[in-house]
Amino acid sequence: MNAEIITIGDEILLGQIVDTNSAWIAQYLGEADIAIRCITSIADRREDISKALLEASSRSDIVIVTGGLGPTKDDVTKDTISQFFKSPFIRNQHVLDHVKQLFVRMGRGEMPISNYAQADVLECAEVLFNDVGTAPGMWIERDNNRFAFLPGVPFEMKFLMEKRVMPRLMAMRSNVHVYHSHILTAGLGESFLAEQIADIEASLPHYIKLAYLPKIGLVRLRLSARGTDVNLLETETENFANRISERLKKYVVAKEDISLEEAIIKNFSESHLKIAFAESCTGGTIASNLTKYAGASKVFDCGIVAYANPIKQGVLGVRENTLDEFGAVSEQTVIEMAKGVQRVSGAEYGVATSGIAGPTGGTPEKPVGTVWIAVAGKNEIVTKKFQFNNSRQINIERSTMQALVLLWNLYVKELV
Amino acid sequence: MNAEIITIGDEILLGQIVDTNSAWIAQYLGEADIAIRCITSIADRREDISKALLEASSRSDIVIVTGGLGPTKDDVTKDTISQFFKSPFIRNQHVLDHVKQLFVRMGRGEMPISNYAQADVLECAEVLFNDVGTAPGMWIERDNNRFAFLPGVPFEMKFLMEKRVMPRLMAMRSNVHVYHSHILTAGLGESFLAEQIADIEASLPHYIKLAYLPKIGLVRLRLSARGTDVNLLETETENFANRISERLKKYVVAKEDISLEEAIIKNFSESHLKIAFAESCTGGTIASNLTKYAGASKVFDCGIVAYANPIKQGVLGVRENTLDEFGAVSEQTVIEMAKGVQRVSGAEYGVATSGIAGPTGGTPEKPVGTVWIAVAGKNEIVTKKFQFNNSRQINIERSTMQALVLLWNLYVKELV
Repeated sequence: MNAEIITIGDEILLGQIVDTNSAWIAQYLGEADIAIRCITSIADRREDISKALLEASSRSDIVIVTGGLGPTKDDVTKDTISQFFKSPFIRNQHVLDHVKQLFVRMGRGEMPISNYAQADVLECAEVLFNDVGTAPGMWIERDNNRFAFLPGVPFEMKFLMEKRVMPRLMAMRSNVHVYHSHILTAGLGESFLAEQIADIEASLPHYIKLAYLPKIGLVRLRLSARGTDVNLLETETENFANRISERLKKYVVAKEDISLEEAIIKNFSESHLKIAFAESCTGGTIASNLTKYAGASKVFDCGIVAYANPIKQGVLGVRENTLDEFGAVSEQTVIEMAKGVQRVSGAEYGVATSGIAGPTGGTPEKPVGTVWIAVAGKNEIVTKKFQFNNSRQINIERSTMQALVLLWNLYVKELV
Repeated sequence: MNAEIITIGDEILLGQIVDTNSAWIAQYLGEADIAIRCITSIADRREDISKALLEASSRSDIVIVTGGLGPTKDDVTKDTISQFFKSPFIRNQHVLDHVKQLFVRMGRGEMPISNYAQADVLECAEVLFNDVGTAPGMWIERDNNRFAFLPGVPFEMKFLMEKRVMPRLMAMRSNVHVYHSHILTAGLGESFLAEQIADIEASLPHYIKLAYLPKIGLVRLRLSARGTDVNLLETETENFANRISERLKKYVVAKEDISLEEAIIKNFSESHLKIAFAESCTGGTIASNLTKYAGASKVFDCGIVAYANPIKQGVLGVRENTLDEFGAVSEQTVIEMAKGVQRVSGAEYGVATSGIAGPTGGTPEKPVGTVWIAVAGKNEIVTKKFQFNNSRQINIERSTMQALVLLWNLYVKELV
């Protein structure tokens, strides 16, 4: 079984809202082994709506349509789908009673006649009763296709997907299953990884696919298997995932679908280790990235954003001599910053950054994008110089990710 | 002129990532008066790609395609578009040199042969040179259509849209011009603002439209004028923008299209004032948000992320008594944190946050989402308690924005 999503309405096409509904539906159906083949966003325009419905039904078994049917929308969508299914809209008394009741319950008084149209559904449709809102959904079976029309309001859409659509999909499902396995790696580029596991990749059976999903300093590997024998899929996929993990051993951060930050929080808290940050050019971004995730407080007590030299000296104890002789953007300075924040916080690991994020502040010796990173661990200090040459925000983002990668690498090294 | 967006790749269809690229492109082109007619997300599948390209080019003048062309992608996309345009891929020496250089500069050594294909572009295409990444974009003119093929990595896509695609779109546009004027306001809700300027709004000529764009604690007003006489558009729009600014005076943060962070950097640096942050629940996010913008170093020397109580005491000088009696999430604690970071940094303004971001850590008296914020200024300290009840990331984001709004309001108050 495969499915398509069509969203109708202007907000997405104007960029006023990000289409999170489609991602939610895709993930929700994906977990039930129903793959999304296409997502289409269109406006309330007759020609585009009928073309999209036609295309989708020619390609996919299930067509999920969100939006376009609210009470204040003009009648283009209703008209078009009525023509498409050659079926008129009729008023549903059960829905009308519900909508009237909701109106009263919300303290909005007697419902105006203009709202009665919310209870209109296609004659050929089964009503997907919407307990949590006024707009009903519709389920239509036509030839080999199943259509679900749903409101665009996220929580109403989710309610209808879970309570009304999924049971209908389950009743018609074939026995095809999908199984995913993820490996997060750090420290080796996409093409180098691919070279290292070329023989394993070549030996994958046709029903298992390998995808490389790279992101600054990291590459995520995803194995996806499809078939009818769910035990075989799991066993075989995990078998290949293990072979790949074994081969890439020292580059593997996690054997699950998590971020580097989550892997750091998980591993450091299990090892009872704390991290502290002394950030200059990244200005709090490393601390902020870690804080996003629940559990950060278990591994992270303290961060110092030492943007100015007096703070580097006063709070972190960087020596005036070091700043005078080598400058703020230097290996010597980040080493003293990393040690300084270890001392101030009592954390086992200290991470420091200093660089020229841009757009100004560069010199011939230290152009914009020059960044020094130091990680002080339990026994060792590692440093690395990067030469980015991007925009300010990208330089900060890359420095942040690279600092976390260096932290991870030293953690792994000192674990042994 | 209208446009369509096609995204190629599995991540969106699997619901693993939310398609923020399309919203960004839609908004960006919308500001240049180019409407998006359709957004389509498809996988690397021959039939779907050529159908999508055909459909899009039959409907829209401009087709923006993102993703599908990375170095380890299989060759379906390349093959398909090569057939679609009846044009082979050829290796571009200029791009190849750039990609090789990037490899060396990133300290990744000699580039493996498998990466050479990144320099392959369609013979019929103009190269959209990608300064910030390895994958080049392509610009193709065919009959009445213009196609832009771009990498899916957001910052690379944005770079190419701004530097390479937009100039080409501008060169082909008709003599209809669009002129925008922006006013950023803080401290008054959308409907109250609308009431205050109702008479001005009613007197706008038909070719000038006013939009309210609200965002946590802020409302951005955008005047958009459309017409052929560019001088008239500018004069009239600025005339109305001035009338609105005059009326809303004390709520106006900026009369240009900038963020609150940029307005803070601009105003504080002109006033020779510095800010320091003492962050608990926001974990460095306020500092990080400010640092994103050039010039941050002029107003911002120091931030302390005091996640744990010992840091609040040791580094910021919060008294043990205060923490014992009132707790870390209290008005008394954030006042001492704000004063403490003023003292440590020597900055005129100190901003402090302490709260329970969630998902755990709440109590009946202080449930998840309870956040205290303090701003210590030159003469005064203001505090405010918020009761959010969202996810961790949203609580952090809202706390961050509200802290900056409070900082701005105190700055304006003390300016007089």
